[in-house]
Amino acid sequence: MEKKSKFITCDGNYAAAYIAYMFTEVACIYPITPSSNMAENIDEWAAAGKKNIFGETVTLSEMQSEAGAAGALHGALQAGSLGATYTASQGLLLMIPNMYKISGELLPGVLHVSARSLAAQALSIFGDHSDVMSTRQTGFAMLATGSVQEIMDIAPVAHLTAIKSRVPFLHFFDGFRTSHEIQKVEAPAMEELEKLLDKKALQEFRDRALNPEHPVTRGTAQNPDIYFQSREAANKFYDVVPDMVEDYMQQLKAVSGREYHPFTYYGAKDPENIVIAMGSITETLKEVIDFLVEKGEKVGLISVHLYRPFSAKYFFKVFPESVKRITVLDRTKEIGANGDPLYLDVEDLFYNRPNAPMIIGGRYGLSSKDTTPAMMLSVYENMKLKEPKNQFTVGIVDDVTFKSLPLLPEISVTPKGTYEAKFYGIGSDGTVGANKNSIKIISDNTDKYCQAYFAYDSKKSGGITVSHLRFGDNAIRSPYLVNTPDFVACHVPAYLEKYDMLKGLKKGGTFLLNSIWDVEETKKRLPNHIKKYMADNNIKFYIINATKIAEDIGLGNRTNTITQTAFFKVSNVIPFDLAVTAMKKAIEKTYGRKGDDVVKMNITSIDKGAEDIINVPVPEEWKKLPADAIVNDDKRPDFIRNVFDPINAMKGDDLPVSAFVGREDGTFPSGTTRYEKRGIAVNVPEWIPENCIQCNNVLTFALTLQFVRSF
Amino acid sequence: MEKKSKFITCDGNYAAAYIAYMFTEVACIYPITPSSNMAENIDEWAAAGKKNIFGETVTLSEMQSEAGAAGALHGALQAGSLGATYTASQGLLLMIPNMYKISGELLPGVLHVSARSLAAQALSIFGDHSDVMSTRQTGFAMLATGSVQEIMDIAPVAHLTAIKSRVPFLHFFDGFRTSHEIQKVEAPAMEELEKLLDKKALQEFRDRALNPEHPVTRGTAQNPDIYFQSREAANKFYDVVPDMVEDYMQQLKAVSGREYHPFTYYGAKDPENIVIAMGSITETLKEVIDFLVEKGEKVGLISVHLYRPFSAKYFFKVFPESVKRITVLDRTKEIGANGDPLYLDVEDLFYNRPNAPMIIGGRYGLSSKDTTPAMMLSVYENMKLKEPKNQFTVGIVDDVTFKSLPLLPEISVTPKGTYEAKFYGIGSDGTVGANKNSIKIISDNTDKYCQAYFAYDSKKSGGITVSHLRFGDNAIRSPYLVNTPDFVACHVPAYLEKYDMLKGLKKGGTFLLNSIWDVEETKKRLPNHIKKYMADNNIKFYIINATKIAEDIGLGNRTNTITQTAFFKVSNVIPFDLAVTAMKKAIEKTYGRKGDDVVKMNITSIDKGAEDIINVPVPEEWKKLPADAIVNDDKRPDFIRNVFDPINAMKGDDLPVSAFVGREDGTFPSGTTRYEKRGIAVNVPEWIPENCIQCNNVLTFALTLQFVRSF
Repeated sequence: MEKKSKFITCDGNYAAAYIAYMFTEVACIYPITPSSNMAENIDEWAAAGKKNIFGETVTLSEMQSEAGAAGALHGALQAGSLGATYTASQGLLLMIPNMYKISGELLPGVLHVSARSLAAQALSIFGDHSDVMSTRQTGFAMLATGSVQEIMDIAPVAHLTAIKSRVPFLHFFDGFRTSHEIQKVEAPAMEELEKLLDKKALQEFRDRALNPEHPVTRGTAQNPDIYFQSREAANKFYDVVPDMVEDYMQQLKAVSGREYHPFTYYGAKDPENIVIAMGSITETLKEVIDFLVEKGEKVGLISVHLYRPFSAKYFFKVFPESVKRITVLDRTKEIGANGDPLYLDVEDLFYNRPNAPMIIGGRYGLSSKDTTPAMMLSVYENMKLKEPKNQFTVGIVDDVTFKSLPLLPEISVTPKGTYEAKFYGIGSDGTVGANKNSIKIISDNTDKYCQAYFAYDSKKSGGITVSHLRFGDNAIRSPYLVNTPDFVACHVPAYLEKYDMLKGLKKGGTFLLNSIWDVEETKKRLPNHIKKYMADNNIKFYIINATKIAEDIGLGNRTNTITQTAFFKVSNVIPFDLAVTAMKKAIEKTYGRKGDDVVKMNITSIDKGAEDIINVPVPEEWKKLPADAIVNDDKRPDFIRNVFDPINAMKGDDLPVSAFVGREDGTFPSGTTRYEKRGIAVNVPEWIPENCIQCNNVLTFALTLQFVRSF
Repeated sequence: MEKKSKFITCDGNYAAAYIAYMFTEVACIYPITPSSNMAENIDEWAAAGKKNIFGETVTLSEMQSEAGAAGALHGALQAGSLGATYTASQGLLLMIPNMYKISGELLPGVLHVSARSLAAQALSIFGDHSDVMSTRQTGFAMLATGSVQEIMDIAPVAHLTAIKSRVPFLHFFDGFRTSHEIQKVEAPAMEELEKLLDKKALQEFRDRALNPEHPVTRGTAQNPDIYFQSREAANKFYDVVPDMVEDYMQQLKAVSGREYHPFTYYGAKDPENIVIAMGSITETLKEVIDFLVEKGEKVGLISVHLYRPFSAKYFFKVFPESVKRITVLDRTKEIGANGDPLYLDVEDLFYNRPNAPMIIGGRYGLSSKDTTPAMMLSVYENMKLKEPKNQFTVGIVDDVTFKSLPLLPEISVTPKGTYEAKFYGIGSDGTVGANKNSIKIISDNTDKYCQAYFAYDSKKSGGITVSHLRFGDNAIRSPYLVNTPDFVACHVPAYLEKYDMLKGLKKGGTFLLNSIWDVEETKKRLPNHIKKYMADNNIKFYIINATKIAEDIGLGNRTNTITQTAFFKVSNVIPFDLAVTAMKKAIEKTYGRKGDDVVKMNITSIDKGAEDIINVPVPEEWKKLPADAIVNDDKRPDFIRNVFDPINAMKGDDLPVSAFVGREDGTFPSGTTRYEKRGIAVNVPEWIPENCIQCNNVLTFALTLQFVRSF
């Protein structure tokens, strides 16, 4: 049993699984995005015989659906085993009937949820709170966390309090943003957590298990005569939950040094305008508050950790009496209600109270819509207005029902010394893997904090990937994409024409291009807007022909180690020698099994990557270049020009609500793929008639190509 | 097509099915209590070829579960068919995922829900709003009705507005109380409703159907770039729903003469204290308001009909500015929330509003807990206190967390001239069937309004049934059990010892006992409390030996026609001759197919029933009788004495919350049946040793009996 907390580099799902495993005896699973790797980690550890807090290996059952997982969980709990499951979105919806049963029967089950959108006008695998909010009436206590570190710090409270109180817990965090964000975090030692377990309560739970040796009747049917009274009899179990949660949070503070409460305040001492929110947005808000408080503004934040039971007592323990205005941010949309759920809950706290503050409700971040410091600035600005907008949205332009707040210019609020990098790759090119490796190298070999988030489009293999990395001497919050990078790498030359990759690149920053051309040809190929941006902003420009190096060495199209080397070389985020040693060690570990040749090729690629980087001076005259000619192809249908093209250019975020007028029900035209010329191949085959032996293979290929193109 | 509205006698499920059938093309069903006979009616009518508003017969599909029914509904709607389903409780929970899809895709589906409790500490088949409240975030519009007549009047709004607005509707009413209450109501003519159909909107719906002739892409996956904007694009469809609902309600008023709005006010002109509620309780509240307003009290009610979208505009159209205090009544329990849902919604309406009234929240009627005028009186009394109790319960005694309001003495608020009758029978003895028949006779042959509600215990066949009947010259509201009957009939002599059947029987009322004894023996057998009650309250006492008459005629144990005849004879609720003619006609219709003999026996039983009733004078000296000796059997375990015995004596309603301390999780001891000596057989077999031929049949029977008793 581990005795000391330790730093590890992991994502939110790993952190939740890490904690959950300790307290779990039976895991009933049916993995669903973005919760899948919680269950997968548990599965892997169970298969490897890892021990939980009781010295046992977790028993894992994969069911036929989430409905089955919840049913099995209910059964395991009734049999006296500590059970848990991990889910999201529609998966969670299928658990609702059993959730009422589990809470009604006061069984200490725990759900870890990487909160995700629900399928409505369209399915989405991305994150918001629609799923967990649809279970707030099930009788589960609900705990919210906003970062990988908070999961490590607070998830134990869910398990410990469930055992002590008999009330089941749902612990949730933002799907993808937190579930898939990699951070260097402190993980508590099992031994420390084991001490906090209420062993008497646990024994009582075991004693209550259904057992033929001392049978009882459970799961009965009740009639109008007694159901209501029975239902009210459970009140007292919920009344004590907030105190227990607070108590465990304070005991855990003694372990981690980090302080949490059911509601936690952050900000100015005498704030006038505060935000109330939960999940990863609270981390962004803390950055913005630091920025504003430094400028003398009286702003703050109440982070909701214990959402159910919603405790007025603990709310008012932290609520500063100086507050005049409150904005409540919800990450869900309950259309037809006058306000989203957290907003309504907060209004109740103040209703009929003297000097009640003004309360404003807003909605943000549906389906992982990236929510940036500028957007939160807009929220605080709104509170300064004489008549602030209520029931607003933020992060989009609503030009139909005009609910959105103005989008302010992006600001950089990351602590000084934070290095931000962004990599454009193509699915399966190894960019994401190499970046995960880089994070690990930096994390393991230095005291630096690291953060990585990987944005994929839905094409997966062959689609665009953008890696967002941050490194710094202080813990990194910033749960949003890198908007003001110090470094941008483009691993796919074809992207030059397609994406606005330098957007936000800091003055004096670095642009690394994997270029299949020499310096002069590269210069010719660069679009004007890139040249001008580099000249205007004093950008350091590097190219490397990773494609050719890989081919020469015999690595085929595996350019990732070469571009990774180039990153370490030009970014200097850690001493380059240290990076090389660590990369080589990693290569031996990763490819050792594949034989010396493979190891050697990869090691050669590191050396070549370092040698072949070319610094391309940026001419002063590029500042004067005219804008690129815009090809306005009127023959393309409206939908293609107005919706499809921006989405493909990664400018879907800029589309206003009006772009979806007439397609509110999720209806899109068919056959749009023919308008998508991706042009991402580095090499294109060419038919040389003189060489033709009429083998027919080429013809088949050509016909297939023609067939594909005509659709 | 029916051209004129007409009076029919039916229950709430029938009324909902009656309306739904008109507007339905595809019914996707999976029947669940208490919604089953909605689906069953649709099924029956479809099988009989009944036509809907489009001149078609409904296509009905029974699926493998409610999840399947919702999926099939989604599919039918996408194919351009008007679809509907009918469900409740866990069934509704299984529809949640598809409900988000149906609303997200703006498909005009309609759900009719007989709202029912959710299984928690125990399952319950009875009514409250827990199920519908768990779907309030799905994007369905929600319409609430409070009586069978309101279903007839308002359910069309759900279908009509769904077609016109594209927003799907969930229409709900109280399970059992409204779904199974029989009332004489006015049913709108199909022709009248057909005129209200928005044919253009309907055609547009047809045109949007998925169709290979003009394919589109629907049910896509959206990414963070556009999901949020798409979701907001749907706002405008919801914004117009309240206006459309109001508009249809006014158009329907022209048909029915009855006036409704999204929120409807009832009560004093300048009320100070009002209640806001939805469902059948609003009918009780109207009675109590009439009672209080007559006494000069300034009280009122806002009935919520359109619960989602929750329209501030229409709320404030009816909200009297004189109001100082509001009590919001919820029929659900969201444990862990600071208030139940309707309460939170109403608080939002007034938050930050000048002169905001005090708002109090209360919970009532979970799982069909009968909610009486006295309880509503208690709610108005609470508002008079200097510091009214908030987050109260009413209808139970909470001696654990002390949330309950005091229970006041029952009051009679039914309009003068309302005749109330109560019949104690045993499941399968025909009492319920005979009473349904009586209701029909009175309804069809007179101008009288009728109401019938049948309370069963869960034993069904062989369990106790109590029929609650009301007749009157005015429309009957009173959606609660008969508490102050004019007439009580006991069809099972064994009940004399078991139940307090005369409780509430009005002074000068009538008690009819099916007695197997003669007058003197009957007098001997009557417990003192019954004798004393009759003497003290000037009760008219009749006996009839229906058991013997039925045996003599050859009807076996079918006593129902005999006791029905006795009811008509002694109650005189309609002229007896009229009743006899109608009963005889009904017998010919019902038993005609079984042959002349059966018809003749039943007709004889009517004549005998009328002849053999005996009026038993109630002696003055019964007033002085001492209380019955209480048998205090200390050998019975605590649970049996304190919980089980009261439940079996139909006194479970009187159990306080503390009776369930230690069994909050629904755990009951096993093997309790052995303490339940029901003793309900009229004849008990006796073994006469002298006659024994050792055939073994008796032995087998005796052993079975012994075996059964020992468990």
